Amino acid sequence: MKIICSQKQLSTAVNIVQKAVSTKTTLPILKGILLEAKNNKLKLVGNDLDIGIENYIETKIVQEGSIVISSKIFGDIIRKLPDADIEIEVDDQNNVFIRCENSDFKLVGQSAVEFPELPYVKEENTYIISQDLFKNMIRQTIFATSQDETRPILTGSLIEIKNRNILMVAIDGYRLALRKAYLNIDIGNKAVVPSKTLNEVNRILGNETEGNIFISFTDKHILFTIDKTRIISRLLEGEFINYNQIIPKEYKSKVKVKTKELLDSIERASLLAKEGKNNAIKFSIKDDIMNVSSNVDIGSVNEEVNIELEGEDLDIGFNSKYLLDALKVIDSEEIFLEFTTSVSPCVIKPTDNENYIYLVLPVRLSKQ
Amino acid sequence: MKIICSQKQLSTAVNIVQKAVSTKTTLPILKGILLEAKNNKLKLVGNDLDIGIENYIETKIVQEGSIVISSKIFGDIIRKLPDADIEIEVDDQNNVFIRCENSDFKLVGQSAVEFPELPYVKEENTYIISQDLFKNMIRQTIFATSQDETRPILTGSLIEIKNRNILMVAIDGYRLALRKAYLNIDIGNKAVVPSKTLNEVNRILGNETEGNIFISFTDKHILFTIDKTRIISRLLEGEFINYNQIIPKEYKSKVKVKTKELLDSIERASLLAKEGKNNAIKFSIKDDIMNVSSNVDIGSVNEEVNIELEGEDLDIGFNSKYLLDALKVIDSEEIFLEFTTSVSPCVIKPTDNENYIYLVLPVRLSKQ
Repeated sequence: MKIICSQKQLSTAVNIVQKAVSTKTTLPILKGILLEAKNNKLKLVGNDLDIGIENYIETKIVQEGSIVISSKIFGDIIRKLPDADIEIEVDDQNNVFIRCENSDFKLVGQSAVEFPELPYVKEENTYIISQDLFKNMIRQTIFATSQDETRPILTGSLIEIKNRNILMVAIDGYRLALRKAYLNIDIGNKAVVPSKTLNEVNRILGNETEGNIFISFTDKHILFTIDKTRIISRLLEGEFINYNQIIPKEYKSKVKVKTKELLDSIERASLLAKEGKNNAIKFSIKDDIMNVSSNVDIGSVNEEVNIELEGEDLDIGFNSKYLLDALKVIDSEEIFLEFTTSVSPCVIKPTDNENYIYLVLPVRLSKQ
Repeated sequence: MKIICSQKQLSTAVNIVQKAVSTKTTLPILKGILLEAKNNKLKLVGNDLDIGIENYIETKIVQEGSIVISSKIFGDIIRKLPDADIEIEVDDQNNVFIRCENSDFKLVGQSAVEFPELPYVKEENTYIISQDLFKNMIRQTIFATSQDETRPILTGSLIEIKNRNILMVAIDGYRLALRKAYLNIDIGNKAVVPSKTLNEVNRILGNETEGNIFISFTDKHILFTIDKTRIISRLLEGEFINYNQIIPKEYKSKVKVKTKELLDSIERASLLAKEGKNNAIKFSIKDDIMNVSSNVDIGSVNEEVNIELEGEDLDIGFNSKYLLDALKVIDSEEIFLEFTTSVSPCVIKPTDNENYIYLVLPVRLSKQ
């Protein structure tokens, strides 16, 4: 194998596929990146058996071939080389020669034969979503996936496509986050995607999120295609919680409040709350004021927040972290908080659209 | 005590004095910040008994007094409050009330009587240096202080004032860094300042380094005054190494090389070198080329660097980390490397001034 490629292109591609390379694996070859030179394309592949990431570079192939190179050292070298053309040559003994201007590296590679192939996902029934929108869907829900491996299904997010809508739903037993968006296709589908996969997709989307992401499913796998990158992940097996049953349809108190004002107040109250149990803060809702308070050994805090209240007065406690997680990802200027009793869940929604629902359970307040 | 102060001023002052507050101390009061309101000034003090930092704010004192408040929670609260006036009031039971717009905190403080006073340093024979210059002197030497507590004197930097020059010198047994600058005063003085103190001075100087820093000594302490901040530190006791005896006055080979070119080559070579012993790299100096190479189990690297050589050819090995540390802080475009033999130290100097000397011992090369 022998190829010539610009340093910029190669380091971009390495940075992307490295995200699927495991550092702690029992299969040593998985610590490497597969390079495959064929048909005027250099393909790079990282694969940890849960997620596989492929990236293509169109470049000069002097001689076709393939090799697996240790991801860590290869990435470090490519990133440190100057902004010039890099020549990579592999000999019969799997020695890899990397040359760029005055630099000359020799590494010991591994035969590509041993590298596990990525699962095949047929690209039919492909859903097309803007990258920007999909990134937002991940951002607004992923924090509500469970970290608890005893219920594996909840460590992922449900992606459901029905009635020309795509939904992303995450539930961890204490709260639920649901993001909905319009989709110009009415072929139904659903799958539970590991949160780790969605995190990687999110990172690969980066900040420049013009263009679309293409999504295809099989029974066991999901494929995301973003420009020249393909991310193939296994799906989580099992039945996801019926989220519709959980979301209350009615309320007794409805509070309208400025998102930023509430966020700032809860952030300050949580400085004390985190010294206590459960990060507990108390909402005391009465007329046009909501008091956000916390009372712990080292001191106490009271924050006054201006609200518009429809319905009954109420005192209720929350884990402030669960509220902050949601308030940080809601972009709307104002939100509704809907309550029934002090022991039933609170529903948070933006006032200006119906695309986002967050539900959080209250905590029992011991003292205060 | 009762004061009113802008959030901006207060959070700036807290950020500065917090650097002297110890998180792990056996004396609980040292986890606090002393607030002292007197003569239309609010003084804040942090003190870990090695370093004390004071900062003053000119502000409205409604009632004079003093209190010690837990540094961590006080700092967190002040930083999170809105950009508005903050009122701090202390009652007879050392309860501290912090009020700002709609926020109302109550914390339990401690009597200021217990807070250890900072050592008194008389401000005579004060040396005045530009902040920018002093920051550079620290940056170019501090990395060569020793981390090894068995020779405590080497964990600090020597500051020596003589012949209208100020010198800063650090030695760790493997290398020496010396930075010299002109000083418009000829009163001699010397002291060994803990590297921790110089690190804090460096941080407090920050990026806006117009203006001067004022330095005063006693036998046991040093005082740095930067605008409204005073940093008082104990000095290290004992005799510093006679650095003049260490620096070779002659050489057999003198290499002139572009700083950035050498830095980049050594950085790349060190990617492999760090997989081996001592981060060892080899310089092979011959005519107008210096080869920088490393040869370890996983591969090898050779870098060609263009040089101008005066004197004899030479092969010599170094710990690449020790070279990188110095090359990163030399701002001059070109440097001289002076060698005598392959087992004697190398001296690095900028070509365009005589203010900086770096000396580094070679390593024995096992293979290569």
